[in-house]
Amino acid sequence: MHSVQFTAETSSNGVIERDFTVGEITGALWSPASGADRAPLVLMGHGGGNHRKSPAMTGRAHRLVTKCGFNVATIDAPGHGGRPLTAHDEQEIAVMQRTMAAGEPVGPIVVRYNAHLAERAVPEWQATLDALQALPEIGADGPVGYFGLNMGTAIGVPFVAIEPRITAAVFGQHWPDVLVEKAKQITIPIEFDLQWDDEHIPREAGLALFDAFASKEKTLHANAGRHKELPRFEADSAVHFFARHLTRAATPSA
Amino acid sequence: MHSVQFTAETSSNGVIERDFTVGEITGALWSPASGADRAPLVLMGHGGGNHRKSPAMTGRAHRLVTKCGFNVATIDAPGHGGRPLTAHDEQEIAVMQRTMAAGEPVGPIVVRYNAHLAERAVPEWQATLDALQALPEIGADGPVGYFGLNMGTAIGVPFVAIEPRITAAVFGQHWPDVLVEKAKQITIPIEFDLQWDDEHIPREAGLALFDAFASKEKTLHANAGRHKELPRFEADSAVHFFARHLTRAATPSA
Repeated sequence: MHSVQFTAETSSNGVIERDFTVGEITGALWSPASGADRAPLVLMGHGGGNHRKSPAMTGRAHRLVTKCGFNVATIDAPGHGGRPLTAHDEQEIAVMQRTMAAGEPVGPIVVRYNAHLAERAVPEWQATLDALQALPEIGADGPVGYFGLNMGTAIGVPFVAIEPRITAAVFGQHWPDVLVEKAKQITIPIEFDLQWDDEHIPREAGLALFDAFASKEKTLHANAGRHKELPRFEADSAVHFFARHLTRAATPSA
Repeated sequence: MHSVQFTAETSSNGVIERDFTVGEITGALWSPASGADRAPLVLMGHGGGNHRKSPAMTGRAHRLVTKCGFNVATIDAPGHGGRPLTAHDEQEIAVMQRTMAAGEPVGPIVVRYNAHLAERAVPEWQATLDALQALPEIGADGPVGYFGLNMGTAIGVPFVAIEPRITAAVFGQHWPDVLVEKAKQITIPIEFDLQWDDEHIPREAGLALFDAFASKEKTLHANAGRHKELPRFEADSAVHFFARHLTRAATPSA
């Protein structure tokens, strides 16, 4: 088992940000500067073509740290954030780019490539969670959540389906095709984001994925707007969701 | 024009509750004990068979007052909360009770009777809003929201469709039949609650009503569960929604 190796540290607005590696995996960990002993941990998966410290990841991490006092960790998906690309990665990315340039539906290729990436990423998430829980400030017995949309859902649904340490998750914005059978195995509380006027993911497809989760508590947040127009207030909603499920005193500080 | 006549006042947990009348209309107004000069106003419509101070109304009012400092007002719908029943009311209620006792679908009767009540209730809401805005602590130029589910949506949608003073609304849990054409006239920000496993309102019917709103910003909150199982956290979500839309500093205090 690889342990967490910290490679860089910065601090801003009461949040410490540390880059780390776990073997070949590159990640980032955000924690309250005031200390986070045994605070809950939220794992976040980034979207396709993005990386561990994209503005969406950094923004959500800062919200979760400052409003809830949580630890928040991301890792670069395989082939993302400067990690090496395989010949298969390069081929699939080229197909995706050609399809988008031609204005053709990119869904089938995204679904297929994300499923491939998920197979490589799930064991990496498990190794990362093992290593993070070996850190004294996190520990092995605290609550753990998962937050990932788009490719973060394509990787997160199969990850959460087999990972009993995750007790609450925010997913959304993906096709159901290869995920429905995994979603049927998931029973933890779920918040699910969907764009009502998504030009890539048909409405019925998004609703079908939400419908598949076996969770007794699950909430769909469907917002008017196109694929990239997910309102920023959904990040605040996710903060409230994790505050409710990962802490006993269920109220964020703002 | 009738003015607000206060008939009773109590206070608890920092919230002043005043019963009032506007002509024949009976209502309740909740305000912060610390003062609410020109604070935003939220109008709340109760569900069928309920009244202005049902536990749902009182609970939501206390949340909005203590977390946002708003004024909150409810009125009894026609025939509700001790207000007189017409012969037509008595007849429709009897039909509803027989239908429910027989285990038959009550939707068509609820839709028809709620549409009738809305015709009587909309002018009452307008008169109440006129009278409330004549109070010095509310005033005529502050932001006004509307929050009503079930029958509160059956009355609220036609009310908001013709009432330009309402600038944000929370609706939900109703059939689309007579409301779709009114919803198409509504362009203000909307939050819409739907129960994913509603045994009375078919899923497609609920989604069709959400779809009808012309609002650029609208959010569907669909929760797993039956008609009466709307999670309590949706009341907190509504508080955040109104905080975002009715105040400039868009964060409730807890």
